[in-house]
Amino acid sequence: MRIKITLSYDGTAYCGWQVQPNGVTVQEVLENALFLATGEHVRITGSGRTDAGVHAIGQVAHFDTESSIPPERFYKALNAHLPLDIRVIKSERADDNFHACTSAKIKTYEYSLYVSDVENPLKDRFAVKVDCALDIARMQAAAKEFIGEHDFKAFCASGSGAKTTVRTIYSVDIKEVDGDIKIRVSGNGFLYNMVRIMVGTLLSVGEGKLHALAIKTALDKGTRPAGIRTLPAKGLCLIKAEY
Amino acid sequence: MRIKITLSYDGTAYCGWQVQPNGVTVQEVLENALFLATGEHVRITGSGRTDAGVHAIGQVAHFDTESSIPPERFYKALNAHLPLDIRVIKSERADDNFHACTSAKIKTYEYSLYVSDVENPLKDRFAVKVDCALDIARMQAAAKEFIGEHDFKAFCASGSGAKTTVRTIYSVDIKEVDGDIKIRVSGNGFLYNMVRIMVGTLLSVGEGKLHALAIKTALDKGTRPAGIRTLPAKGLCLIKAEY
Repeated sequence: MRIKITLSYDGTAYCGWQVQPNGVTVQEVLENALFLATGEHVRITGSGRTDAGVHAIGQVAHFDTESSIPPERFYKALNAHLPLDIRVIKSERADDNFHACTSAKIKTYEYSLYVSDVENPLKDRFAVKVDCALDIARMQAAAKEFIGEHDFKAFCASGSGAKTTVRTIYSVDIKEVDGDIKIRVSGNGFLYNMVRIMVGTLLSVGEGKLHALAIKTALDKGTRPAGIRTLPAKGLCLIKAEY
Repeated sequence: MRIKITLSYDGTAYCGWQVQPNGVTVQEVLENALFLATGEHVRITGSGRTDAGVHAIGQVAHFDTESSIPPERFYKALNAHLPLDIRVIKSERADDNFHACTSAKIKTYEYSLYVSDVENPLKDRFAVKVDCALDIARMQAAAKEFIGEHDFKAFCASGSGAKTTVRTIYSVDIKEVDGDIKIRVSGNGFLYNMVRIMVGTLLSVGEGKLHALAIKTALDKGTRPAGIRTLPAKGLCLIKAEY
């Protein structure tokens, strides 16, 4: 039986989603919990690999099990063996051909910034400080350049191993409330570091250091504008995967 | 010269504000930073002692120094020697008779709850989960019982060593947005665990387990209603001290 789970995690303590030799990952901790709950050694497949330090509100994953635990109660069995910074919030039976990664139609990430002279210890775990007020309207106008199908070669880190760098972005919404800035990006998929580089680009626009047209040029030419930062992982959160 | 500082901290890693033999405290870490910045071993006095695990957005403290660091730049000198979970956000010269604790007229705390079936790893560091939706209107009505000058003997933990248990509460504001509940309490001072017991009482009211009148009776008789919880420290945050 195939089970689909939805989970949240504080990524601070983890070397990302995917099992790797040099550190503890979310996938590994989940697979251990599944073993403790069922006695089965099974691979758990996520909607995508979040990087080290990236958080999730609604990551989706699937696995196959012979367990008699009712699908809709599986989340409780897993949570009993998980640390508090990883919580399964929902579990349900999925079709045998459901695949958390390849079946995903839309993924949505949110990047959080806050404007402050000094770091705020109550925000700094899940958001990144910027020193000066940003021109939000300018950022919103520039964000439109990302919408649609483009070759995002200029907006990914090397080493992603993706077959193609063409992706479709459905929306980029930027909201600011009392200096807290949330940038929410939906697309059919994302390349390595792509959201963190896109937001780094929009930050340069908001600071007045980059013109919106530079985004169009970068997409056309496949070359990133000079001086663009890849923003830190801690500000990024996977909001949802839709099927 | 007397310096007044305003600071924020994530209290998770600390055994509260006050220096004590069995763990690292915010006061101790601040005094070490002051020594590293100035070479002076000086006591730093806070507006009040926050308990182990309690956070602060606007704690106020004072100290005396012979340093030539300009008062309004002292926060940068201290931050250079502080861990990121403690940040001084403002520093200024104060009158020699200013005292962070005894000069404080109003202190404001906020307690954060969130309604969820499962813990939310992105909220759970600074808020406490409640299982079912609360009757906010009922809690708001009950909260009015706390307003004014009362003997809060029924709403404090033993061992506070306070000379009197009479305190004045100026306001209790309860707001709920999308299941995030913020309870903000202002008063002229607070007894040991007082806010955490007051909010535990309001929680019982919101769950329909306690009638608002039980608060009035408890204040009058000095005896806490049965079954009231002292809520966890992590949901509590010192918002500001006013002078």
